[in-house]
Amino acid sequence: MKNKNEKIVTREENFAEWFTSIINSAKLIQYVDVKGFMIFQPYGWNIWENIKNILDKQFQEIGIKNMYVPLLIPLSEFEKEKEHVEGFAPELYLVSSIGQKKLDDPLAIRPTSEIMFCKYFQNVIKSYKDLPVKVNQWTSVLRAEKNTRPFLRNSEFHWHETHCSFQTFEEANDFSLKFLNIYANFCENELCIPVIKGRKTEGEKFAGADISYTIESMMQDGQALQSATSHMLGQGFCKSYGIQYQSKDNTLEYPFNTSHGLTTRIIGAVIMVHADDNGLVLPVSIAPIQIKILPIFWDKNPKVLSTCEELLTKLKTNYRCEIDMSGKNFGYMQSECEVQGVPLSIVVGPNDITNKTITLIRRDNSEKKVVSIDLLEQTIVSELEQYKENLYKKAYNRLHSSIIDISNISEMENILNSKKWVRAFFDGSIEDEKKIKELTGATPRCIVENTSIGKCIMTGKETNKLVIFARAY
Amino acid sequence: MKNKNEKIVTREENFAEWFTSIINSAKLIQYVDVKGFMIFQPYGWNIWENIKNILDKQFQEIGIKNMYVPLLIPLSEFEKEKEHVEGFAPELYLVSSIGQKKLDDPLAIRPTSEIMFCKYFQNVIKSYKDLPVKVNQWTSVLRAEKNTRPFLRNSEFHWHETHCSFQTFEEANDFSLKFLNIYANFCENELCIPVIKGRKTEGEKFAGADISYTIESMMQDGQALQSATSHMLGQGFCKSYGIQYQSKDNTLEYPFNTSHGLTTRIIGAVIMVHADDNGLVLPVSIAPIQIKILPIFWDKNPKVLSTCEELLTKLKTNYRCEIDMSGKNFGYMQSECEVQGVPLSIVVGPNDITNKTITLIRRDNSEKKVVSIDLLEQTIVSELEQYKENLYKKAYNRLHSSIIDISNISEMENILNSKKWVRAFFDGSIEDEKKIKELTGATPRCIVENTSIGKCIMTGKETNKLVIFARAY
Repeated sequence: MKNKNEKIVTREENFAEWFTSIINSAKLIQYVDVKGFMIFQPYGWNIWENIKNILDKQFQEIGIKNMYVPLLIPLSEFEKEKEHVEGFAPELYLVSSIGQKKLDDPLAIRPTSEIMFCKYFQNVIKSYKDLPVKVNQWTSVLRAEKNTRPFLRNSEFHWHETHCSFQTFEEANDFSLKFLNIYANFCENELCIPVIKGRKTEGEKFAGADISYTIESMMQDGQALQSATSHMLGQGFCKSYGIQYQSKDNTLEYPFNTSHGLTTRIIGAVIMVHADDNGLVLPVSIAPIQIKILPIFWDKNPKVLSTCEELLTKLKTNYRCEIDMSGKNFGYMQSECEVQGVPLSIVVGPNDITNKTITLIRRDNSEKKVVSIDLLEQTIVSELEQYKENLYKKAYNRLHSSIIDISNISEMENILNSKKWVRAFFDGSIEDEKKIKELTGATPRCIVENTSIGKCIMTGKETNKLVIFARAY
Repeated sequence: MKNKNEKIVTREENFAEWFTSIINSAKLIQYVDVKGFMIFQPYGWNIWENIKNILDKQFQEIGIKNMYVPLLIPLSEFEKEKEHVEGFAPELYLVSSIGQKKLDDPLAIRPTSEIMFCKYFQNVIKSYKDLPVKVNQWTSVLRAEKNTRPFLRNSEFHWHETHCSFQTFEEANDFSLKFLNIYANFCENELCIPVIKGRKTEGEKFAGADISYTIESMMQDGQALQSATSHMLGQGFCKSYGIQYQSKDNTLEYPFNTSHGLTTRIIGAVIMVHADDNGLVLPVSIAPIQIKILPIFWDKNPKVLSTCEELLTKLKTNYRCEIDMSGKNFGYMQSECEVQGVPLSIVVGPNDITNKTITLIRRDNSEKKVVSIDLLEQTIVSELEQYKENLYKKAYNRLHSSIIDISNISEMENILNSKKWVRAFFDGSIEDEKKIKELTGATPRCIVENTSIGKCIMTGKETNKLVIFARAY
C-alpha cells in the first residue's frame, strides 16, 4: 500500500525516522534548543492527561494520596544514600547560583524524589499506627541523557512517582507486586499493549532498590521498552535518612519502603506498538479525539451540517468527539484522522441525509461501514470494542510469537536480528550481563516467573532464573 | 471564647503566628531545609487540586488547551526581552553544570514561561488563520525570595499560566479583562472571597507587560493580597522573539500576547480571609472533606456505625465525605473538624438511632441542628448554601466597610494602622509610589474603575486615576 501521507516515512524504510515523522505529523511535541527537552503540544499533552486521569483514579481507589515534594534537593542530602547518588550523580542538573549569588551547597533538580519523600516520612512516621503510608505525585523530573529521543529518552520527562512505607518486608513486597499488576492491567486493558512481567537483574535494578519489578513491552521493530517499574526499596533509604517507628512491642524499627513509576515513555510505546505507515493509531481510552465527524458536500445540502451538530451533541456526553469544520475535502480530512490516530470517523454527506445513514471508518483496519442512523450509538459501542480487541490481539500475537528459547549464547544474535526476543536460563554476574550486551547488543529485560531448572547460558551452572533478553529502547 | 486547640495562637495575639499555627495544625504543608521550599502534605495538596479542577474546566470551556513547556530556559534566551530579564534576573535559579560538566550557557529554572510559550508561538503562528492561540499549563515555577512565608511567598510555587496570542490590541485587551472576570467570579463564587478589580500602576506591573490587571482581596488583618493577575503583554515579546503572522491583507504583523496566572498564594488568602482561632474554615468547593461523619458511643449501640456507613454511601456520590473512625471522643473529633475546616459535621449517637435523627454542626458559626434523618439531604443542601453565603457576607462587609477615601497623604498612615485600605486620586510617578511606600508602608494595589476627577495626593494635578493603597502580602 502506498503511503498516503508523504511526510511519513514507512516502518520498513527506517523505523527510527518513521517514529519521528509520526510524532511530527501528529503535532505531539515541538523540539526546543535545549538538548533532551521538548514542548508538549496540546494534542500530545492531552494523551498524557488522559493516561494520568485513568491511573490517578485507580491510585485513589487503593488509598494512595497525592501530595507534592520540592523540585530541588540539596546535594549534601543526596550523598547520604550512597548507591542512590552513585546511580544518579552524572545525570544531575545542578543549581549552583541564584542570580549572582553562589550557593555553598549546590541544589540538584530532582531526578526522582525518594529523598524528599523520606523527609516527609521522617515527619509522619512515628508509630506502627502510622503505617502504611501511601503517597504519590505527578510531576516532571530531570536526568541528563546523552542520546535523547522524544518520549523514549528525554532529559525532562513526566511521570507519577508513588512512594510507600510498610512495617514488614512481605507487605512492601506484596504491594510492589500489586502495583506491577496495576501497571500491567493498565497497559493491557487501556493501552492494548501486552506486557511481560518480571524482576530486574542485579545490573538493571534501580539505584538503591533491593528488588525492581518491571513490565516490558515489544515494539514493532522487535525492541523492548521498559514500560513501568515497581521497586521494593527495602530498609536502605530508611536507614540512610533515619526513619524509624515504634513497633507494637515498643521496639524501634526501620520501615520497608517502595516506589513506583510510569512515565511519558509509555506514549513512545503506544506509538511504536500500534501506529502504522499512515500515522498514529491511538487506544480509545487515551485518544484526545475518540470520534471525529467529517461533513462532506455541505454546500449541496444544508442538513449535512445540522445533522453533524446533532450527532456531536449526542455523542459528546460519552465520547471525546469533534466535527472537522476545516471545509477540506474528504481525502484530506480522512488523512488527518489517520495522522491523529482517531479511532473512529463518522462521515456525513447529502446521500446519508436522504438515506438516514452515516458511514463509519475504523482507524485500525480502514473498514467502512454504512450504518442506519438509528443504530449509530450501539454500533459505535461494538466497533470501539472490536477496535480495542483488534489492537490488543495484533500486539499480543507479535509478542508471543517472538519469544524464542535458547540454551546456547551463540544462538542469541541471529534471533535478535530477526526482531525477536530470547528467553534463556541465566544466573550470571553484572559482568556477565555486560559481556552479553557487548556481544549481542541485548540486555536482560527481566527474570520471569518459572519453576523449572536449566543451565545458565553464561556460567553453565544450574539455575531456575529464566531471563528475557532483548535489545531495548 | 477560649481557644480550644492549645496549639493555635489567636489572631488578636499575633496574626502572623496565628497563620503559621493554622497551617501546621491542619497539616497543610511541611517545611524542608531549602529556604522557601515546602512539602505539600496530602491535605494541603488536595485543596490545590480542587482549585485546579474547577478552574481547568472553566478554561476548557473558553477554548483554552493545556500543554507543557520545558522547565529550563537558556539564559541567553532570557536576555532577548530586556524588561523581562531585568525584572527576574536576581530571582533566577541557575543551572551551570550537569554532573561534573560545566555549561557554556547557563540554564535558568523558569520563573514564568513567556519565553518558552513564545518558542511555541513561533512555530504555530504563521497566518491570521492561526490566531487566536490560547494555551495553558499547570506547573510550579521558581523565584528566589528573601523573606519567605508558606503560601504567601515561596521560592517554588504552583500556578497555572495561560498564554494567548491575538491579532489586535482590542482582542487581547478584552480577553485580559475577560480572564480577570473569570478570576474574580472564581474567588467570589467558589472561594467566598470578595475582590477589588483593577489595573496595576507603572511601578507594580509585570516585567514586560503593557497593562497588568489584578484582583486584590483583604485579609482579616487589613492587609491586601494580590490574588491573581491578567497581563496584556502587547507586542513586546513578539518583537523580541520574532513572532509574526501574515494578515488578511498579506502584510506581516506582530500579534498581541496576553498571560494570566493564579497561584497557590490563593490558599494563603483563603486561610487569612476565613479561618478563625479554632482552625481553618474552608469554602465548600475546595474543602478536601466537605462533610465528616462523627460516630459517638458506638459501643452502646452497634447500629451507630452501620448508620454512619449508610450515610457515607449515600452522601459520597455528591460530596467529599468521610467517617472519623479514630474512636476518639466527640470533643476530640469535633476539634479535629475545626482544625481541618470541614464545612459540615454530622454527629450520630445511640439517641439518634432511637429518634431517627442526626445532629449537624456548621464550621462557620458552630451552630448545632438536630435533623430528622429523612430530611438530611435537603438540609445539607440548604446548610451548605447558607454556609457559603455567610462566609462571603462576612468577608464582603469587612472589605467594603474598610475602604476609606482620602484627599491628603497625611491621613494615610492612621487609616492603614486601623487595618483599613485607602482610596485616593493618584497620578504620580514610580518615584512617587516609592515615596508613599517609605512613608506609610503601603503600595498602590490597583487603579479602579472611575469616571470622576480629583487631585493627585502626591502631585496635586487633576486626574481620573483612583487608586487603592494598602499594606500588602
